[in-house]
Amino acid sequence: MNVDAKYFKNLTSKERAIFEGGISMGALFHQFIGTPVNNDTKKTLEIAISESLNLQPAVENVEVKIDLKDNNTKFEYISLSGEMLDIVITTKIDDVVAKIRMKFIEELNYPLMYVEYVKTNP
Amino acid sequence: MNVDAKYFKNLTSKERAIFEGGISMGALFHQFIGTPVNNDTKKTLEIAISESLNLQPAVENVEVKIDLKDNNTKFEYISLSGEMLDIVITTKIDDVVAKIRMKFIEELNYPLMYVEYVKTNP
Amino acid sequence: MNVDAKYFKNLTSKERAIFEGGISMGALFHQFIGTPVNNDTKKTLEIAISESLNLQPAVENVEVKIDLKDNNTKFEYISLSGEMLDIVITTKIDDVVAKIRMKFIEELNYPLMYVEYVKTNP
Amino acid sequence: MNVDAKYFKNLTSKERAIFEGGISMGALFHQFIGTPVNNDTKKTLEIAISESLNLQPAVENVEVKIDLKDNNTKFEYISLSGEMLDIVITTKIDDVVAKIRMKFIEELNYPLMYVEYVKTNP
Repeated sequence: MNVDAKYFKNLTSKERAIFEGGISMGALFHQFIGTPVNNDTKKTLEIAISESLNLQPAVENVEVKIDLKDNNTKFEYISLSGEMLDIVITTKIDDVVAKIRMKFIEELNYPLMYVEYVKTNP
Repeated sequence: MNVDAKYFKNLTSKERAIFEGGISMGALFHQFIGTPVNNDTKKTLEIAISESLNLQPAVENVEVKIDLKDNNTKFEYISLSGEMLDIVITTKIDDVVAKIRMKFIEELNYPLMYVEYVKTNP
Repeated sequence: MNVDAKYFKNLTSKERAIFEGGISMGALFHQFIGTPVNNDTKKTLEIAISESLNLQPAVENVEVKIDLKDNNTKFEYISLSGEMLDIVITTKIDDVVAKIRMKFIEELNYPLMYVEYVKTNP
Repeated sequence: MNVDAKYFKNLTSKERAIFEGGISMGALFHQFIGTPVNNDTKKTLEIAISESLNLQPAVENVEVKIDLKDNNTKFEYISLSGEMLDIVITTKIDDVVAKIRMKFIEELNYPLMYVEYVKTNP
């Protein structure tokens, strides 16, 4: 079966790139939030998150930065939360590339997911 | 701060409706997969999933159906998995309404997330 | 197969009650942390958490209290975190009853899981 | 505050080793189930799971083996599920060492968590 022809013919390549990026960002947040982490383990966790998201067909690249701030000084570890994450997921559908970002926005006081960049024939 | 004006001016209402629906569907899948469930508890779980997703600003409605199939006869409970879920998330941005669906597709043998419907001025 | 005779003969009833309670508490924490919640939805979420944990064979009762504090005034919803939870899981193996608790301890500044009570022939 | 003296004086070292191992096993299962994985990424995921569990104070060692079976041939990736996991968590409290295991038991047709070994002065 041609999945794209059957289920995605109602979306443009741009819409699909945005859709797939949204799914991956929502997935990432809810899959990994709560994982115990400290400065010794954060590198491996960043790579594991990145690799797992990269498996999804439309995903071209995933950059994950975990910022533990000064939390780490008081405890042996903390639970990963949205405030600590700065993530860029790059999706590609045909000739459209989109960069979906999640980062903590000081003014909002919560981690926002938004489309940082989307372009045809980049 | 006007979040929409600052972070979402690069998206049309249609693209934003699709983006927010994708985030919610990815979130839902990875948040609730693994939850112990049986026929006695599935109604409450369906409602809890629906209510939690409904909190997100762009989400208008969430329909969650859990199909435990015959798994339930052998064990006291099973872990919720993607194959058991049929979900429709309705998002609305300005005058655009989108219905994002996840359901198990026999031919693909996995649960697919796709945009079932998206319309302006519906 | 008699699972208990094969896999649990090395534990006393008291040890098994404590073990099963520990599993359930760890499971609960990592399953539900991150779920969107507010004052309108917390009752359903408390019930869903309680019902899902109650399915495990050794678990007799689960009390879940979510305290959103004043967080709720600023946002439409927040992500469930360990600090908001006060949970008591009651397990029973043969004639032993154990109460496993997780609650936020001010002095420690984190949610602690401990055995509040364990008794034979209660 | 001496947490152990205040909250764990009602447990023997053996009971505490079993309790902490149960918590970690339940946590691990519900934290990581659902993560996308294939043969290329499973090594990193095994290490990330192991490292995150190792942060917990009572945990001395964690061995994680993910067996993707032949699932991997049909799809680009699959969602991590309990059937694929063989895990041994070693906890130590004072002079007691416990090995908590989760593995798929053919006869039961589900992944069982049990205490494989527990000994004083090993």
